[in-house]
Amino acid sequence: MKALVYHGPGHKGFEERPRPSIQQPADAIVKILKTTICGTDLHILKGDVPEVTAGRILGHEGVGVIEETGSAVTDFKKGDHVLISCITSCGRCEYCRKGMYSHCVNGGWVLGHLIDGTQAEYVRIPYADTSLYHIPAGVNEEALVMLSDILPTGYECGVLNGKVQPGSAVAIVGAGPIGLASLLTAQFYSPAAVIMIDLDNNRLEVAKKFGATHTINSKQENVLEKVLSVTGNRGVDTAIEAVGIPATFELCEKLIGPGGRIANVGVHGKSAALHLEDLWAKNITITTRLVDTASTPLLLKTVASKKLDPMPLITHRFRLTEILQAYETFGQAEKEKTLKVIISNDL
Amino acid sequence: MKALVYHGPGHKGFEERPRPSIQQPADAIVKILKTTICGTDLHILKGDVPEVTAGRILGHEGVGVIEETGSAVTDFKKGDHVLISCITSCGRCEYCRKGMYSHCVNGGWVLGHLIDGTQAEYVRIPYADTSLYHIPAGVNEEALVMLSDILPTGYECGVLNGKVQPGSAVAIVGAGPIGLASLLTAQFYSPAAVIMIDLDNNRLEVAKKFGATHTINSKQENVLEKVLSVTGNRGVDTAIEAVGIPATFELCEKLIGPGGRIANVGVHGKSAALHLEDLWAKNITITTRLVDTASTPLLLKTVASKKLDPMPLITHRFRLTEILQAYETFGQAEKEKTLKVIISNDL
Repeated sequence: MKALVYHGPGHKGFEERPRPSIQQPADAIVKILKTTICGTDLHILKGDVPEVTAGRILGHEGVGVIEETGSAVTDFKKGDHVLISCITSCGRCEYCRKGMYSHCVNGGWVLGHLIDGTQAEYVRIPYADTSLYHIPAGVNEEALVMLSDILPTGYECGVLNGKVQPGSAVAIVGAGPIGLASLLTAQFYSPAAVIMIDLDNNRLEVAKKFGATHTINSKQENVLEKVLSVTGNRGVDTAIEAVGIPATFELCEKLIGPGGRIANVGVHGKSAALHLEDLWAKNITITTRLVDTASTPLLLKTVASKKLDPMPLITHRFRLTEILQAYETFGQAEKEKTLKVIISNDL
Repeated sequence: MKALVYHGPGHKGFEERPRPSIQQPADAIVKILKTTICGTDLHILKGDVPEVTAGRILGHEGVGVIEETGSAVTDFKKGDHVLISCITSCGRCEYCRKGMYSHCVNGGWVLGHLIDGTQAEYVRIPYADTSLYHIPAGVNEEALVMLSDILPTGYECGVLNGKVQPGSAVAIVGAGPIGLASLLTAQFYSPAAVIMIDLDNNRLEVAKKFGATHTINSKQENVLEKVLSVTGNRGVDTAIEAVGIPATFELCEKLIGPGGRIANVGVHGKSAALHLEDLWAKNITITTRLVDTASTPLLLKTVASKKLDPMPLITHRFRLTEILQAYETFGQAEKEKTLKVIISNDL
C-alpha cells in the first residue's frame, strides 16, 4: 500500500509500505476513506517529537471502513464505517477507568507517533472496541474527520477545562484550527463574550463568521486594554491558550480575571514564566491536558443534531496521491488561508 | 491604647495610639482578648508588602469581645465574644455573592494591611455582621485564634483547591504553621498518604505527630525519588505549596502525577518557571487563592465537635505588653521551635 512516511527531521516520502495485519486479538484493520494533517505532524517533521522514529507512517485522524477484525473485537465487523480516535484506549487500565484515556498505559496517543498512523491506505487500530466509533447514519463523513482530534481537543482541553459558562467572558489566544474548534464548542454554553486573538487578519475574519463577539490582532492592537474594556476592567473568566509558546501563555496570565481559569491547549516545547507574584492571591486555576477523546460520543450527537457544524473548518481537499502537495498547502497556512485539509483515499 | 505599629521596613514599635471609634454604621469595635503574629507580618516588616504604610497597626487574627457596634450592626451586641476573620467581607458585592470574600470590592484583606489591625487593645472591624463569628459555648478561645487565618488558609487554598480525596497521595511542601494547617485539615478526607517535606527536622517531627504518613528532609534526601517510591512511580494526586519561593513551586511540578492538582498556598514575590514542556499533556491543574474564609463556620463546627484540634499549633504564649519579645521568638522559628504564638491582652 501507499503511505506518508517520516524519515527523520525535514524528510518525508509518499511510498510503498506493507499493508498492516492483525497483531493482537483486539486489533482491527481499517481501510482509510478520509484523513487529514495536524499541526502536530508538522512538529514531528521539524524534529520536535523525538520519540517518533524514522520509518513511521504519520497521521492520527480519519474515517474509514473496517477491513478485518481480531478475534476479541465484538462491536465492529467488516464493512462498518468508523471514526478513528486520535487516542487509543485499552478501556481497562486505571487511567481508562477514570476517563483519562490519553494516559492509557497500553495506548494513549500512539497512532502516527509510536505505531503507524492514518496517512495511508490502511491502518491497524489496537483496542478497536474502545478506540473506534460507529458513524451515525446521515452524517457527513468528511465533517467527522474533525472529530478525530481537533474538536475534542478544543472542547475538552479548552472549553471543559476552562469551564465556559452562560454569561461568561472568554478569550481564545490563537485562531488556528484548534482555537476555532474551541470557539465553535464554547458556544454550547452561551458565553456573553468570546474574544479571539491572533496575528492573522484572515483567521480573525473566519473567527467572526464562527461566532467570535470580538477579535483582536495582537500585532496591531493593545490586547490587554481591549480585553479590559470588553470585560468592565475585570479580565476574562476563561482564557484558552491555543498556540503553544511562552508569550501566548503569559498573555493569558495577564488577561485572566479573579476567579478565572486558564485552559492550556497548546503543545509547548519550553517553559513559561508563571507570574505567581501577581497570581498567588487571584484565585485562578490553570489546567493542562492532552485530549482524552472522552467527549467523542457527545460530539457525534452534536454533529448529528446539527448543533455543531465542523464543515467550515475544511478549506482544502486533496487525494491521498496528492498528499505531499497537501502538506505544502497546510504548511503555508497564512498564505494559502488553510485551516484543515481533507485527504481522500483514491487508491 | 497600646498597639504594635509598623514604621517602614525594619522598624516597629509598641506604643500609645488613639482608641478606634465607629466610623461607619456597619462597624464594630472589638476589645482584643487574644491575637497572634503571622508570617505575613514578617513580610510586611521586611518591606515586601509596600501598600502597608508607616503608622499602620499590624495584625489580622484574633478573638475578642464586642465593645461597641454601629447602628447597622444587627447580629452582634456589646459583650459578645467573637472570632475575627482575617478577611473583611461586605456581603453584597459580586465577589462576596460568589463566596470570593478575599476579592470583596469593599473589603478583602484590609486588617493590619490597609486599615489598623488586631495587635492592639482594640480594633475597628468594618462590616461586622459578615466579618465576625460568634464563639460557640465550650470552645477554647485560644484555639480559635488559629481560625482567623491559618486553618482556613491551609484548608481552602491547600486541601479544598487540591481536592484531597479518600485514598489519594498528598505532598505538602513546607511544614510551617500553614503547611501544618493543611496537614491537619487534609485528614478530614482520609488520604492514603500525606508526605511532608521541609528542611527543618523539628518541624518534620511535629508533622509526624500531626498525622503525616511520611516525612522528607529535602536537604538530606532525594525528594523526587522518595515520593515516586511512596506513590508506585506515579507522583502525587495533590501537591500543596506552603512556602512561597520558586524552588518549592517547581518541586511541586516535579512531584505531581497525571491528573493531579498543585494547590499554591505560599505568598510569592517572584515568578516561577512553569515547565509546560513537561506538563502540557499531563492533565494537571494548578490553583492559586487568597483565603476567602468561606469555610470558617464549617471549621468552627469541626473544632466544637473535636474533629480538629488547633491547640498543638500553639507553641509559645506572651502578654500583649511582651509583643516585641513575641516577634523575636516568632522570627527565629527554627532556633526557638516556634509554630504559632498566642498574645493575650493584659491591659
